[in-house]
Amino acid sequence: MNYKMIFKSLGMLLICEAIAMIPSLIVSIIYSDSTTKVFSYTISILLAVGIFFAIALKPKNRTIYARDGFAIVAFGWVMISLFGALPFYFSGAIPSFIDCIFETVSGFTTTGSSILQEVESLPKAILFWRSFTHWIGGMGVLILTLALFPITGTGAYQVMIAESPGPIPGKLVPKVANTAKILYKIYISFTLLEIVLLVIAGLPLFDACIHTFGSVGTGGFSSRNASIGSYNNVLVEAIITIFTFMCGVNFSLYYQAIKRDFKAIFKDEEFRFYLGIVLVAILFITVDLYGEAFRSIGESIRYSTFQVVTIITTTGYSTADFDKWPLFSKMILFVLMFIGGCAGSTAGGMKNIRILSLIKSTKTEILRIIHPRGVYSVRIGEKTIEEKYLAQIKSFFFMYMFVFVIAVLIVSLDGFDIATTFSSVAATLSNIGPGFAIVGPMGNYSQMSVLSKLVLSLTMLIGRLEIYPMLLLTIPSFWRKVNI
Amino acid sequence: MNYKMIFKSLGMLLICEAIAMIPSLIVSIIYSDSTTKVFSYTISILLAVGIFFAIALKPKNRTIYARDGFAIVAFGWVMISLFGALPFYFSGAIPSFIDCIFETVSGFTTTGSSILQEVESLPKAILFWRSFTHWIGGMGVLILTLALFPITGTGAYQVMIAESPGPIPGKLVPKVANTAKILYKIYISFTLLEIVLLVIAGLPLFDACIHTFGSVGTGGFSSRNASIGSYNNVLVEAIITIFTFMCGVNFSLYYQAIKRDFKAIFKDEEFRFYLGIVLVAILFITVDLYGEAFRSIGESIRYSTFQVVTIITTTGYSTADFDKWPLFSKMILFVLMFIGGCAGSTAGGMKNIRILSLIKSTKTEILRIIHPRGVYSVRIGEKTIEEKYLAQIKSFFFMYMFVFVIAVLIVSLDGFDIATTFSSVAATLSNIGPGFAIVGPMGNYSQMSVLSKLVLSLTMLIGRLEIYPMLLLTIPSFWRKVNI
Repeated sequence: MNYKMIFKSLGMLLICEAIAMIPSLIVSIIYSDSTTKVFSYTISILLAVGIFFAIALKPKNRTIYARDGFAIVAFGWVMISLFGALPFYFSGAIPSFIDCIFETVSGFTTTGSSILQEVESLPKAILFWRSFTHWIGGMGVLILTLALFPITGTGAYQVMIAESPGPIPGKLVPKVANTAKILYKIYISFTLLEIVLLVIAGLPLFDACIHTFGSVGTGGFSSRNASIGSYNNVLVEAIITIFTFMCGVNFSLYYQAIKRDFKAIFKDEEFRFYLGIVLVAILFITVDLYGEAFRSIGESIRYSTFQVVTIITTTGYSTADFDKWPLFSKMILFVLMFIGGCAGSTAGGMKNIRILSLIKSTKTEILRIIHPRGVYSVRIGEKTIEEKYLAQIKSFFFMYMFVFVIAVLIVSLDGFDIATTFSSVAATLSNIGPGFAIVGPMGNYSQMSVLSKLVLSLTMLIGRLEIYPMLLLTIPSFWRKVNI
Repeated sequence: MNYKMIFKSLGMLLICEAIAMIPSLIVSIIYSDSTTKVFSYTISILLAVGIFFAIALKPKNRTIYARDGFAIVAFGWVMISLFGALPFYFSGAIPSFIDCIFETVSGFTTTGSSILQEVESLPKAILFWRSFTHWIGGMGVLILTLALFPITGTGAYQVMIAESPGPIPGKLVPKVANTAKILYKIYISFTLLEIVLLVIAGLPLFDACIHTFGSVGTGGFSSRNASIGSYNNVLVEAIITIFTFMCGVNFSLYYQAIKRDFKAIFKDEEFRFYLGIVLVAILFITVDLYGEAFRSIGESIRYSTFQVVTIITTTGYSTADFDKWPLFSKMILFVLMFIGGCAGSTAGGMKNIRILSLIKSTKTEILRIIHPRGVYSVRIGEKTIEEKYLAQIKSFFFMYMFVFVIAVLIVSLDGFDIATTFSSVAATLSNIGPGFAIVGPMGNYSQMSVLSKLVLSLTMLIGRLEIYPMLLLTIPSFWRKVNI
């Protein structure tokens, strides 16, 4: 391990966080909401600590090995969460520091689970920072897709790369840094476009920013207690539905769409699978809600569409208390929580390409039993997927469920009901936000014990970083000195 | 497909079922409980239909291909359930035929889920037949372990065979038929021994038989409404705990133990894993129950031990209403439901060897990330497990969860609570019996809709036959004519 480079990188990360806090500082000045000092202090601390590590350390060997990369990502995410929690703590918006950490991890991991029982009375700048963490987190995930995930052996990104017919993520253009720039341009374009559209639809600029950060980062924090439902504005709902859906799609497809033709998106097999699941889920839930939760078919479609899209994209915004919907609808939403968005998007969950690969791989296993001498391979798009990557995807699936089970066991010590326990873990592991019952769309995570809040913060990180980086840190041989 | 041989085999199976019904007929005569006619009629029907197919059909080609084998097993299990349901229907003990089927499938699959709200008033011969189906089912599963599972590509049995240091199942002795005889001798010895011990412990002979059938088949039907709890007899509980535990162990280990030395059992890695999980679960639940559900540490140990063992062995007997236990204990039991017993036992669930292989395989995946050039292999016992079998085990895990999710979605249409919905599917898929809430140890499955009862009957069969045989029937190419 190149510890000096790790610390230097973490220092630079803190400097970036200081810069990322400047917009919130400006908001606090505009609204003169008494948090200007809070943000000034925090930025000073970030700069002091960041510069100390970034400049004071002068590593001779400037190479960052794969293992260093894992450590930087895992600790980096934890560090920016710890320091990012300071404004909540200093301002008194969230009195308990554990709660501050939970809220900030939830922000940076674009989860959107909250311990706040009431948000409308909070200072504007605090709300802005809270949602801005989603936006930063979304950006961070796009980087991970390029730099980290393809080497973690989780299968999905190798398959994604194998599948892409044209320019591929990580290779959109020769250098990773350039590719990142392209992805960021797309991300920032989406952001600006959504803000403009939401303002046109009737939202105040501040609200438009908050909900855009929550949409494009597929986070879900709102400045309203009743989330998007408080506006009761179909246009706003439609815009958020479209943008969250778009941000659940592999971003490299947009690059392809720009360079080649728009149809390229629809040729992508993962996209078609994702779209198919969304449409089927909307259909089933609409039928289930009609006559039960809503009287008109129009309302059923409106609410089911919004909820299906914000759940599968792991955003978690709500326009209705879906916890009160019939069980069948709730169970569909629960399954969507595990599926999540596409690989290479800002969404969480297991990712559609993994589910698709698992289903296809299972089919071939069955065919092999019938025709033991037959030769079968799993194809996604036009490419055959290597057995090695399928094995990694299957292992990923097991690990995901394994982490889920362990977290459920720990959270169950709180003694809540099964719905709360299961859904709180699923909603954090897949970075969604709200679950059912106590942690439902009208509830929050404030009642959880300190242990549960820590465990759920950890599941948010584990889910966001696709399990491996966090698990690696627990393996003794990860820390051992080895010649690589 | 050799249809003539399939029908001939099914005919022979019905003749066997007729013979298997004779003990129940004798019981009805002894207790002169008005069901003598019922059993006479059913036996006549079974013989008539069975002999017709077994003797009238004269296939030229007497070879049974692998695919025919799958069809015989899948349809065979359905057929004996349909015909085995007749005594319940004819006697009026269960008025609805769907309920009769559910109860019989639950019996033959050694599940023990019941739609009966009250059992103590039923005729003795009906209770006897109901429990005897467990005993037959347990025997059937031992055959499957020898003849079917090793060729289904579910991985577990190949691993089990690879692991066994000495004589191996399917090869204990050269011929399958002889191996089956040895396993049956062990099974019958356990049966007789448990009956004798239960009688010594104070149970009437009839009750001893019923609960022995339920234990050695790891089924769980009781002749008492309060299950084993009604006796409040520590000795009875201890005997049942030991025998269910023993029947959750790979039966070929007993053969090895007899031939070599008793320690061979403890050298088996799957056995040690199984034992470890049982002990850890007992420890956690005891601590959780102490002071909460029970006042003394002795009582906590007594009830937790019994419940952990009957759940992990997928028997499902209860001595307490564990649905009222703290959530942590319930969640541990829920996890145990999925794990189940060892491969080659009469228990259901995913099997310990699969979980063990999955954990070990996951470890190597993580190590491969740290040391990409390292060579890692998964070892169980002293043998290295081929990647092919690991892939099959991982696919099995995905399929298990996939079936679980689909069944949960369908059962959720009934609109019960989440605890009932999840646990009813888990308890049937893993062949346990009771779950939580409405289907808890003091409840039953009578409130479920006809659709749910059919789906849960199917999940019992899917779980018992380890998924593949039932899934294969749904694949069109399974039915297509192919030269094999």
